[in-house]
Amino acid sequence: MMPQGPKTVTAAVIIIGDEILSGRTKDKNLSFLAEALNDVGVQLRECRVVADVEGEIAAAVNALRGSYDYVFTTGGIGPTHDDITADSIGAAFGLAVDYHPGAMDILKAHYAHTGGELNRARMRMARTPIGAALVENPVSKAPGFRVENVYVLAGIPVVCQAMFHSLKHELVGGDPVRSIAIAVHLAEGTLAKSLTGLQEKYPEVSLGSYPFHRDGRFGASIVARSQLPDKLAAAADDIRQLMRELGGDPMEEDG
Amino acid sequence: MMPQGPKTVTAAVIIIGDEILSGRTKDKNLSFLAEALNDVGVQLRECRVVADVEGEIAAAVNALRGSYDYVFTTGGIGPTHDDITADSIGAAFGLAVDYHPGAMDILKAHYAHTGGELNRARMRMARTPIGAALVENPVSKAPGFRVENVYVLAGIPVVCQAMFHSLKHELVGGDPVRSIAIAVHLAEGTLAKSLTGLQEKYPEVSLGSYPFHRDGRFGASIVARSQLPDKLAAAADDIRQLMRELGGDPMEEDG
Repeated sequence: MMPQGPKTVTAAVIIIGDEILSGRTKDKNLSFLAEALNDVGVQLRECRVVADVEGEIAAAVNALRGSYDYVFTTGGIGPTHDDITADSIGAAFGLAVDYHPGAMDILKAHYAHTGGELNRARMRMARTPIGAALVENPVSKAPGFRVENVYVLAGIPVVCQAMFHSLKHELVGGDPVRSIAIAVHLAEGTLAKSLTGLQEKYPEVSLGSYPFHRDGRFGASIVARSQLPDKLAAAADDIRQLMRELGGDPMEEDG
Repeated sequence: MMPQGPKTVTAAVIIIGDEILSGRTKDKNLSFLAEALNDVGVQLRECRVVADVEGEIAAAVNALRGSYDYVFTTGGIGPTHDDITADSIGAAFGLAVDYHPGAMDILKAHYAHTGGELNRARMRMARTPIGAALVENPVSKAPGFRVENVYVLAGIPVVCQAMFHSLKHELVGGDPVRSIAIAVHLAEGTLAKSLTGLQEKYPEVSLGSYPFHRDGRFGASIVARSQLPDKLAAAADDIRQLMRELGGDPMEEDG
């Protein structure tokens, strides 16, 4: 029997928000989702940040949902006029959008409990493409939803994170990518040639070199990534050895 | 004579980097570029984060360079094997990639000055698509470059920022988008209906509502954006008035 390669499962993220593109808000969901997905064996491969425009959101969803196993959107599911994600997902899938009975029940119970008014604007948060599955929101109740392989999450980071924890048991992951990061106060140009040789020696390990500038000194972090733990460890040993040979002092970092 | 509308100039950003998609590095260039571009009258409309794969980088460049006035890439222009941006831009434009004479002169002078060796790996940083214009790098010398409307910048934030300051005089901007942000400890669902009315009253102003969760309390920031200062100020006055009518205490924020 031929040995099987590692199982790879992929995802893309679509960040919906004029506020990110204006620079006013710094996105926090991409790095959270990248790490949280990797923890369940899903590799984030692409991200798009798009404006609050239905056609652009729908185009991004349709460009990505066939290319990756999962797509996650963040933002645009609140009660105001600029919250157009549900309609945009409906447009992408050619589905009508209506009040989701399960979501309406959640909102009714929530506002009965808090004494708030379930007005027309808040009811907007119960709208989904018809047939969508809900994603529980333990923080502020108004749910996210899923259509096929596209998960629609909130933009507010604490809610986005809570929704991800609600849905992650549904994801079928592959072999996770492990990484080892080793920093050194050597110029990338000093490391580069030997690093190319190491990359050829370990084709199953992806070697990245990330220059940094800290406290007035330049250096580089070498990050090795692989789904194969043995190959990863061997490559990391060679990297440390290489750094010492070049006169550097390898520093372990968080992978 | 009919009054002319504001002049709009747009841009997209492509962030090249497995390290961003792995969650290991948090991108800092998007928010910098968003604000710096707006300061010179250029509106950032889309961003893509793509993996270190030539075909994916080239596809993103070609998808965006016809749709926006300017495209900026960050990352992948160092001396190591995973720095493939120059080749990817060459592939996107159908241009051969070679050592740029001006870039070689800069590197020769730099390494003669510092006593470093201009080895084959470092010479890699002088490679550009043939005919590219250089972008000065006052921090670490190895230049960025431009092909048509695509600017290729470093990924390391301090270098990316310095390169942007080197090139910004070349950009021809339009009327800048000004913004006013007003926060209030009111639920979005309370504000939503009246806000929809205000959006209809001020079609030249874009009103965004961004919920937040701070110190255990939910609230919303209402951000008004426009290229027309008078309309912006009038809309902001109406927003403050609306918040007070709903029992809230408007708090001015950085636009």
